[in-house]
Amino acid sequence: MEKINIRKLASILNISVATISKAMRDSHEISDATKKRVWDAARKYNYTPNPYASSLRRKKSKTIAVILPEVADNFFSLAINGIQAVAEAKGYHVLIYLTHESFELERTFVEDCCSGRVDGLLISITSETQTPDHIAKLQKENIPIVFFDREFEQITAPKVVTNDYDCGYQSAKLLVQRGCKNIRFLSISESLPICTKRAQGFLDAMAETVKNFGEEEAIYYCNGNNEQTRDHITKLLLSRPKVDGIVASVERLAIQVYLACQELKIKIPRNLRVIAFSTVETAPILNPSLSTVTQPAFDIGKSAAEILFTLMAGKDYGYHKKPVMIPSQIIERDSTK
Amino acid sequence: MEKINIRKLASILNISVATISKAMRDSHEISDATKKRVWDAARKYNYTPNPYASSLRRKKSKTIAVILPEVADNFFSLAINGIQAVAEAKGYHVLIYLTHESFELERTFVEDCCSGRVDGLLISITSETQTPDHIAKLQKENIPIVFFDREFEQITAPKVVTNDYDCGYQSAKLLVQRGCKNIRFLSISESLPICTKRAQGFLDAMAETVKNFGEEEAIYYCNGNNEQTRDHITKLLLSRPKVDGIVASVERLAIQVYLACQELKIKIPRNLRVIAFSTVETAPILNPSLSTVTQPAFDIGKSAAEILFTLMAGKDYGYHKKPVMIPSQIIERDSTK
Repeated sequence: MEKINIRKLASILNISVATISKAMRDSHEISDATKKRVWDAARKYNYTPNPYASSLRRKKSKTIAVILPEVADNFFSLAINGIQAVAEAKGYHVLIYLTHESFELERTFVEDCCSGRVDGLLISITSETQTPDHIAKLQKENIPIVFFDREFEQITAPKVVTNDYDCGYQSAKLLVQRGCKNIRFLSISESLPICTKRAQGFLDAMAETVKNFGEEEAIYYCNGNNEQTRDHITKLLLSRPKVDGIVASVERLAIQVYLACQELKIKIPRNLRVIAFSTVETAPILNPSLSTVTQPAFDIGKSAAEILFTLMAGKDYGYHKKPVMIPSQIIERDSTK
Repeated sequence: MEKINIRKLASILNISVATISKAMRDSHEISDATKKRVWDAARKYNYTPNPYASSLRRKKSKTIAVILPEVADNFFSLAINGIQAVAEAKGYHVLIYLTHESFELERTFVEDCCSGRVDGLLISITSETQTPDHIAKLQKENIPIVFFDREFEQITAPKVVTNDYDCGYQSAKLLVQRGCKNIRFLSISESLPICTKRAQGFLDAMAETVKNFGEEEAIYYCNGNNEQTRDHITKLLLSRPKVDGIVASVERLAIQVYLACQELKIKIPRNLRVIAFSTVETAPILNPSLSTVTQPAFDIGKSAAEILFTLMAGKDYGYHKKPVMIPSQIIERDSTK
């Protein structure tokens, strides 16, 4: 069958060329129904978008951007390695922007991406991010964007995540099985989906397991830099000496729990059992070895980058409706035994 | 005293305006003698270069680049934080490029910096880097460059380092004091100054301390990714069971030593004492806690960035002759006791 071009396809569907182009880039301006019509017709008439069609309009930078909170965190370091593995194979450069959880920085970085400096963006949002306008603006410029790990629920865009709810649920169940009576879930944000989903899984497991479970004190928020986080945790452990189990929802919280316990001479796991969402390579050699929800950080980065390159080539990435979910693995070590 | 301009200064010194400009940017094209003449005259005649003189020629990007090997390493994560603290205060963005120890990537990234994308570069070179042409090319474009940690000896440029030789020396002395008879220095490169200086300090201390010290086997090279590094270390520990002390010259080597010992059931410190150049936050909570040469990573990044901004403003950064040296601190913990 002969290939048709975008104009022909537009006339068949009786919509504009721009609408087809936006639909194929998964723009939020186009309805799901129209996207489906476009992709169905594209398949039917064997239409393959020219990957460089859009690059004729703007100069290709051969660069993608990654905006993320922090690199002093093994999860993000590994995710970057996954992203870079894909980008290098495609001959692209990766620019990394660190927000350090500042929404203001995130906003200016995203604006920076509008200027033609990059061809696509991978983003893991800050714990402060509450409004989507900066992201929506980038989508209007037809610059492909993919969320990884820390997504933004209100934005329609490809997302690569892990099974956060399930892992929160299973972490709580594990601590209960090991005899914990008074468990706290440590969180860094009331709005980040990774935190709220992990927390919801935790709360549901607790409500199922513990009679008259009170949610009020179950989630404990720790903010700030490492020292401030450690102070928060120390305060919790001193004021609530009956706490005998902790689920740390992000990597750096677990390390601060260990350091706080070392200072307070609280023995893990005898006095306090700990499990953490963490990919930290030192988990097996910590004292005691740390039970982890090990996230597929490299694969999350790799998968997000692959989707981004698919979008940048103007192709359908095949996951319009749901985020791509790559499951984590619970590895029990001495800290919960 | 009235301010004079660059043309007046050029006519006083009987050299070209371009030479003055290059001298003030510490270009390698200008001799040290000429640089001194220019700075002396600038002070004498109260000449302050216009910080935006060069920006009139090229559009300011308000962006600096950081090229470095890896972020899954706390040293570099902390150095980035130091760099970003300075850049943010100046209203600049930081772009991070990761080389993963590939010289080819480093070369293309440095070339990327020539295109006006950035106003200045901070770099920590790869373990493969042997030729300086890519750096020299950037200097010719008058884009300021500052080395941090991993410098390139053949290039004249500002450098911020730590007291590598001394720390290698002291690490060896500590292990000897603790009773080690058969010590190995683990290195990742035969050419990186950080490795060769740390190794030389180690060798000198050993030669002073141990009768008939043989250098042949004292340095052991571990290359590749984490798994390959661990294999190298396992091979060493199996083939040389008398080895009872290790100096790990970079952070990730220490973690691989611990993991290899865990697998081989070698007890630290009883069978093997370990000290590492490392800023890893988990050092006190490892099993056993890790003795470290703790590098001032944040301050190295911060200082390098401050020098870069000084150069970008066309000012003298005040350290023409010698690298800026910020000392490390040896913290003994259980792994050497």
